[in-house]
Amino acid sequence: MSKLHIVLLSGGSGSRLWPLSNETRSKQFLKVLRDENGEHVSMVQRVFGQISRMVPDADITVATGVSQVRSLEMQVKGRYAEVVEPERRDTAPAIMLACEHLASEQGARRDDTVVVMPIDPYVEDGYFAKVLEISQAVQTDAADMVLLGVEPTYPSEKYGYIVSEQTGDAPVRKVSRFTEKPDEVTARELIAQGALWNCGVFGFRLGYALGILARYGSFSSYEDLRSRYAELPKNSFDYEVVERAESVAVIPYAGDWKDLGTWNTLTEEMKDPYSGRVVVDDSTCSGVHVVNETGLPLVVAGLTDSVVVATPDGILVSGKKESAAIKSLVGQAAESQPMYEKCPWGEYRVVDLSSFPNGTSALTRELIIREGKQLEYQRQTGCSVVWTVLSGQGEVVIEERLQEVAAGSVVCISTGQAYAAKATASDLFITEVQLGRVLAKEDTEELELFWDENQ
Amino acid sequence: MSKLHIVLLSGGSGSRLWPLSNETRSKQFLKVLRDENGEHVSMVQRVFGQISRMVPDADITVATGVSQVRSLEMQVKGRYAEVVEPERRDTAPAIMLACEHLASEQGARRDDTVVVMPIDPYVEDGYFAKVLEISQAVQTDAADMVLLGVEPTYPSEKYGYIVSEQTGDAPVRKVSRFTEKPDEVTARELIAQGALWNCGVFGFRLGYALGILARYGSFSSYEDLRSRYAELPKNSFDYEVVERAESVAVIPYAGDWKDLGTWNTLTEEMKDPYSGRVVVDDSTCSGVHVVNETGLPLVVAGLTDSVVVATPDGILVSGKKESAAIKSLVGQAAESQPMYEKCPWGEYRVVDLSSFPNGTSALTRELIIREGKQLEYQRQTGCSVVWTVLSGQGEVVIEERLQEVAAGSVVCISTGQAYAAKATASDLFITEVQLGRVLAKEDTEELELFWDENQ
Repeated sequence: MSKLHIVLLSGGSGSRLWPLSNETRSKQFLKVLRDENGEHVSMVQRVFGQISRMVPDADITVATGVSQVRSLEMQVKGRYAEVVEPERRDTAPAIMLACEHLASEQGARRDDTVVVMPIDPYVEDGYFAKVLEISQAVQTDAADMVLLGVEPTYPSEKYGYIVSEQTGDAPVRKVSRFTEKPDEVTARELIAQGALWNCGVFGFRLGYALGILARYGSFSSYEDLRSRYAELPKNSFDYEVVERAESVAVIPYAGDWKDLGTWNTLTEEMKDPYSGRVVVDDSTCSGVHVVNETGLPLVVAGLTDSVVVATPDGILVSGKKESAAIKSLVGQAAESQPMYEKCPWGEYRVVDLSSFPNGTSALTRELIIREGKQLEYQRQTGCSVVWTVLSGQGEVVIEERLQEVAAGSVVCISTGQAYAAKATASDLFITEVQLGRVLAKEDTEELELFWDENQ
Repeated sequence: MSKLHIVLLSGGSGSRLWPLSNETRSKQFLKVLRDENGEHVSMVQRVFGQISRMVPDADITVATGVSQVRSLEMQVKGRYAEVVEPERRDTAPAIMLACEHLASEQGARRDDTVVVMPIDPYVEDGYFAKVLEISQAVQTDAADMVLLGVEPTYPSEKYGYIVSEQTGDAPVRKVSRFTEKPDEVTARELIAQGALWNCGVFGFRLGYALGILARYGSFSSYEDLRSRYAELPKNSFDYEVVERAESVAVIPYAGDWKDLGTWNTLTEEMKDPYSGRVVVDDSTCSGVHVVNETGLPLVVAGLTDSVVVATPDGILVSGKKESAAIKSLVGQAAESQPMYEKCPWGEYRVVDLSSFPNGTSALTRELIIREGKQLEYQRQTGCSVVWTVLSGQGEVVIEERLQEVAAGSVVCISTGQAYAAKATASDLFITEVQLGRVLAKEDTEELELFWDENQ
């Protein structure tokens, strides 16, 4: 009996949702939605919930980049395999890597079904019911490649269209061609012909993908492929595989399907129009969403159909329509360095970053180490560190010498000394000043954890 | 020969220009204009420049509150007298206090002319030429009180109108009545009758004002009046004095006159539409002014006729029209504590403020002590202080013990210890953490300067 493997692609840093998203807080991890209990959930959490309800027997593999592993593990508990791309190279290599992992690490068989999909579609449960139909079509050899096609709701110029030989009631249709991002007139014609939107869902037998992979080289194992990942073509799975397949079928899906990748679309699904320290003059504003994750007071008046988003990474003020095109503006404006991050031990926020004429720089951060958690034992070889403990109790280790700390304690760590910290009786709040060559990742040497994690 | 004394009233904290203005950075001190050399100047600096060109022989007295003295002295060098109101009580008491100062401290004579005006009108030089005409009218006894009246340019509902018996070419007109903030229809009628806008410029003989002052009590000296300031009526000079005067004349002024007290009017005169770390999508924005005094990247797209202002005090996003009415919104949103300030010794910026369950709080600030300057010798009786020196060289004194500091130095000051700091060879950059009961002004005890200022 063959099995069903779902491969979820977790890509992109989502700079179109800047400044809420950043390198480590990709859009799919933002907790801006609410589940049925009213709890804030991310797009990833919503999708995992839907899969567990609709396709409970499927194995799940997540293919992602190293910068997202931590967010994924913090948000989703449970059984799924992780495939971490050594570098970002587009969807074709990522899917090949996941397939190799299925075959050589998870013991999947060549005739098993693989259904690849994005990790963050905003869809009805019925979308996941279609995964079973795709699997059935694959297993009955309807085609080498079976896609999901979304019934278009308007002549969009930004999607790819799948044109099939059958239309109407046919549940599985033979695909005749693809048209990428047509103009509006062409889009109308395509819709009249029964064309469907390509939503990035691909079903196939594992063996089919492994056969394609073999064309690029002979890989002896998953680790071998990982180490030679750069040999795979930097191309999308659509162009590299789907459009070259001998037979392609498509299964129509008529329910809700949204890409919440821009402020324009995301705000439609956000339940809270305002969050954080915000005063909005409702008598002069309409269609306005405001997110404030800074401590600064934010006042909004006389604004229409716009978003205002302020975080420690930056401030965006944009018309909703125009927000779809902020990517290049953000590229001009933004830091690559995330200015705040949630970590396994708690969180930090950069409050100041200064450079001085002599070439040194200073980074001031507020750290919160959560009760019972520990900051990794580490050395900074490029800078010294000064901690002022603001609140809480904890322990600090410098070169294996342990000291207790509490509000008012000042800890000086010289360049190159190994240090760690643990919050004991309560959350530990620290103001940290790094001084020297700050922010250079190669200067951080991570050591073993100092305290036993299960202690 | 009688003299001419100009009294400049420096009032209001300008919350309508929040978050650029705050308690210590009132609107009139914001350097958002440019002088003829292209240098940034404030409204106050512009007016002082105009007076020195147009009325060089006048003595100048500035009446202001204690929170503005420092800004005034930093921005304007030269000879002027300062009259510091012990508390804010409206314009009538402030002008009385200035007149008492002229009489008893500056040796002005009762038949000298006093011309009172706001410190921040945005006007042509011709406005100040009118001061001499007012003085001449006062000295020729045209009336007890001689006003300047601005020729209206539209039927405004927000100004006071001065109705006079003569109109047309009469250079000095006898005032028959005042109408405050009429509706638009009435305003049109008033303008048709030749009424002028009241712009808060009042000329009179010093003795006339002293005579009115004597009605409120017998004051033996300037200091006596200051100590009994609360006995003066909390009323505007218009209502308390001008409208009760037996004879009032008005001199017309037909040039530019603007109140730059709202973002709507101020942005019309700002030479730079964008300042700070700002990326504006000009292809989708029009009529947009952006001021960013934070270090955060700020991106603006799809915005029309609006202002975006971000400072350490807060963030404002407002339609320009609606910006005239932000005062109450700001009241709901904002801190009373200024989050940054320029000081005689340099500047500081609050980067974090946290409160903890045990009742303590922590304040993190970045200090820049300018080369050669010193932080006042002081005690904080409510909190301890930790300094991490980021850059520069200097000296720190704790309880009279002096130490040299440089980048990397950490200085711990216990609650109640007296301390001071001086930047010696270069600007001194410090991250400061205050911990305990922070921000309580009564906990700061200011001592003598530690270093001789002329050293």
